[in-house]
Amino acid sequence: LSVRQRCSFFFGSGHQDNSFPLRYLFGPGPSNVPPRILAAGSRPIIGHLHPEMYEIMNDIKRGIQYVFQTENNMTLAMSGSGHAAMECAVFNMVEPGESVLIAINGIWGERVAEIAERIGANVHRLVKSPGGYFTNKEIEQAVEKHKPVLFFLTHGESSAGLCHPVDGIGDICRKHNCLFLVDTVASLGAAPIFMDKQNIDILYSGSQKALNAPPGTAPISFNDRACHKMFNRKTKPVSYLFDMAHLSNYWGCDGKPAREYHHTGPVSGFFTLRESLAILAEKGLEESWKKHKEVSAYLYRGLEDLGLKLFIPERDLRLPSVTTIAIPAGYNWRELLTYIMKHHHMEMTGGLGPSIGMVMRIGLMGYNCEKTNADMALHALADALKSCKKSKP
Amino acid sequence: LSVRQRCSFFFGSGHQDNSFPLRYLFGPGPSNVPPRILAAGSRPIIGHLHPEMYEIMNDIKRGIQYVFQTENNMTLAMSGSGHAAMECAVFNMVEPGESVLIAINGIWGERVAEIAERIGANVHRLVKSPGGYFTNKEIEQAVEKHKPVLFFLTHGESSAGLCHPVDGIGDICRKHNCLFLVDTVASLGAAPIFMDKQNIDILYSGSQKALNAPPGTAPISFNDRACHKMFNRKTKPVSYLFDMAHLSNYWGCDGKPAREYHHTGPVSGFFTLRESLAILAEKGLEESWKKHKEVSAYLYRGLEDLGLKLFIPERDLRLPSVTTIAIPAGYNWRELLTYIMKHHHMEMTGGLGPSIGMVMRIGLMGYNCEKTNADMALHALADALKSCKKSKP
Repeated sequence: LSVRQRCSFFFGSGHQDNSFPLRYLFGPGPSNVPPRILAAGSRPIIGHLHPEMYEIMNDIKRGIQYVFQTENNMTLAMSGSGHAAMECAVFNMVEPGESVLIAINGIWGERVAEIAERIGANVHRLVKSPGGYFTNKEIEQAVEKHKPVLFFLTHGESSAGLCHPVDGIGDICRKHNCLFLVDTVASLGAAPIFMDKQNIDILYSGSQKALNAPPGTAPISFNDRACHKMFNRKTKPVSYLFDMAHLSNYWGCDGKPAREYHHTGPVSGFFTLRESLAILAEKGLEESWKKHKEVSAYLYRGLEDLGLKLFIPERDLRLPSVTTIAIPAGYNWRELLTYIMKHHHMEMTGGLGPSIGMVMRIGLMGYNCEKTNADMALHALADALKSCKKSKP
Repeated sequence: LSVRQRCSFFFGSGHQDNSFPLRYLFGPGPSNVPPRILAAGSRPIIGHLHPEMYEIMNDIKRGIQYVFQTENNMTLAMSGSGHAAMECAVFNMVEPGESVLIAINGIWGERVAEIAERIGANVHRLVKSPGGYFTNKEIEQAVEKHKPVLFFLTHGESSAGLCHPVDGIGDICRKHNCLFLVDTVASLGAAPIFMDKQNIDILYSGSQKALNAPPGTAPISFNDRACHKMFNRKTKPVSYLFDMAHLSNYWGCDGKPAREYHHTGPVSGFFTLRESLAILAEKGLEESWKKHKEVSAYLYRGLEDLGLKLFIPERDLRLPSVTTIAIPAGYNWRELLTYIMKHHHMEMTGGLGPSIGMVMRIGLMGYNCEKTNADMALHALADALKSCKKSKP
């Protein structure tokens, strides 16, 4: 193999411009990144262990405390996407052989169950079809039956477009000495969540949804109950990279005076995450929740005017960031989405995991959450419905 | 907790400019990012599963094949720093109870040993003090004794400034039916490595050293021998996120027609990684190796002219990207480094892990690898030596 042999394709950088086409990212994420966040990501980097970086990380910590509505000291961002936070939560909270209970009503619960099984947990699944939800009574009965150390629930089930109620579940978990883990990747900033008030013990999210940062970082927070279990375990977590004993030090959350080298954090990713948290804080959470509610309601009306049916019948259970539409009778959903991408440069997506073939999804999150964008999406959909022949007339 | 309560610190974005000071990153990484790579990172993002993204990932794959000098199909970038690649390699290659042999002559071998222990491997350590190296005879004897399924070696031991010889070790491993895993995080692009020719079975690196991209992505490659073991295991790897059964599909390496959603890759991070690979390919590997050799030799002379002693006596074993200096007698190394940062805005670092208190480190990597930068580093060091009183006269 010649040293030069494989590099010819790279010579000249004409490849650049064609590879970054304009795309309206109106799927379930990532969403379009506002210029202010892009600019933060292009700042010359500093060292991952410089004092100025610690200040940026401290800003991120305070920003996450705000958007999670928590006072938890053990609050930080993972060097990875939402899946890194998911694995971090399970790896640190659960030891082999322990019982865990996972609510599955879409894709995310199944992922958590798979992760917990890999580390040897005793996994119990509480299952509904996509878009289904669990009553507090059902949850309490299952907790009583399986005596889990951890109960997992998805707040924003993006595969089905469901925003699951959370009130009261934290209390049930406390009563039964179980920790409450919630996934808010797709809902953070779009639908209200109150980590402390709702007694959520572990909460995580992602950067690329309503926060509008590029993917690659993931907020996570643990309260004192979670820390007590996590830092009194018998076995080490399987991952060194995701071990909170190290990450808590890296983020200055362990009370020790010095932060030691653990891994090299994504410096530019932290720049963008801080900027995205700052934008949300400046706007205000309540304002952001209100905006998502208004724009999604506007979108629902437009979709119904097109004769489309919303997948989640209960309006109050719909996820304001990701709207799911039942696939219109007789249409091929892949054909519709391909048409929309080709003619409108717009991403909408199909289902994910168990909801594939059941839904089409429109995400209008954070920066993208505007009535003008809803109009664009509706226009593209109307055009596709008109242009794509019904495959089964 | 009021919804508005915690966000006051964020209002106004006056925090921005002070948080991104100019820093000459002349430590062991991350290094300064050239404007062309910063610009790639600030491009509006596209979806992580768009056809254009697959093209970008294919470019990255070809770029890694070139810089690794391999034809391996199973070549991709991790969504994480070098530690993610390290864990990916160990998690996928080793099953609980299997014997592994780890060469430790600085920090990285110890990290790999810790990771392998966490997943229940039977870990054997081959240890030298920082900067020591292993003869092929010593390695073969240890392989014969412990019959490992995997032997780990660090090519660029950045904590000690050693570039370990690799020739012949791959053959020893083949002879004894053992896989050869090499860490080239700190050496890639700075010192020659030939994955195929040197019979390296698994090779990984990082984005933030001589490649000059921001941290957050990590090239990795597996040859057919490694794939055979990895895809015929009895147990699933502990991590879903780092499971090569999924990552190989996400990167289009498994021969299946469709790529399925696994996790959301760091879109901007892939933009920057591709640009950094393109720059290295345009320059040419041989040219880059030559440049690092020349500039480091120039730096050695300057350091010796200052009366300083190189930590690695054997010139041919010195890592061209990271130069280690024995701490000059009587000086407090922390004081020297603090002075250099304060007065010259320049990062040099102390040791890492077992080399703390033994060395100071200067990294001139990729874009930073210029004689003018060596001059700046030498000037700053000379100033610090003159200005910082010897603590033990």
